[in-house]
Amino acid sequence: MDILKTSSKSNPSSVAGAIVAALKEHNKIEIHAVGAGALNQAVKAIAIARGFIAPMGDDLICSPAFADITIAGEDRTAIKLMVEKRK
Amino acid sequence: MDILKTSSKSNPSSVAGAIVAALKEHNKIEIHAVGAGALNQAVKAIAIARGFIAPMGDDLICSPAFADITIAGEDRTAIKLMVEKRK
Repeated sequence: MDILKTSSKSNPSSVAGAIVAALKEHNKIEIHAVGAGALNQAVKAIAIARGFIAPMGDDLICSPAFADITIAGEDRTAIKLMVEKRK
Repeated sequence: MDILKTSSKSNPSSVAGAIVAALKEHNKIEIHAVGAGALNQAVKAIAIARGFIAPMGDDLICSPAFADITIAGEDRTAIKLMVEKRK
């Protein structure tokens, strides 16, 4: 499974492109975001990616979950968005 | 369809309870969030709600989209999360 990471400075359109590209190779991808700003860009990216794939008759769904990760030796809680095409 | 609204001060567990309650009456609900803080609480609430319904063998999926809304006469872009049970 492919893992994408967003920050509060990520460009949602670029992340949307990366989501669509990753879903061509994997059935399911994960987006990890730490903090409200990073999550905001991740969710916007999924909304934009839905528009990218809609002309092909596809749609995306996501399931959010919590994930414990370590950044620079510190324990942080990330939000993990599992993204896949709607069947 | 039921519409829930979150703010950056929403309690994710309370919103999770409201999601589960609303999904007992509707197949699909919408959560509207304006701003990164509000969206953060909404996504956390969905992650928590997944845990609430998992013991019944259910799971939740969400589809994000943009929504134009008017708050106090001002045009704002909200994120709309359409939440439903996974079939």
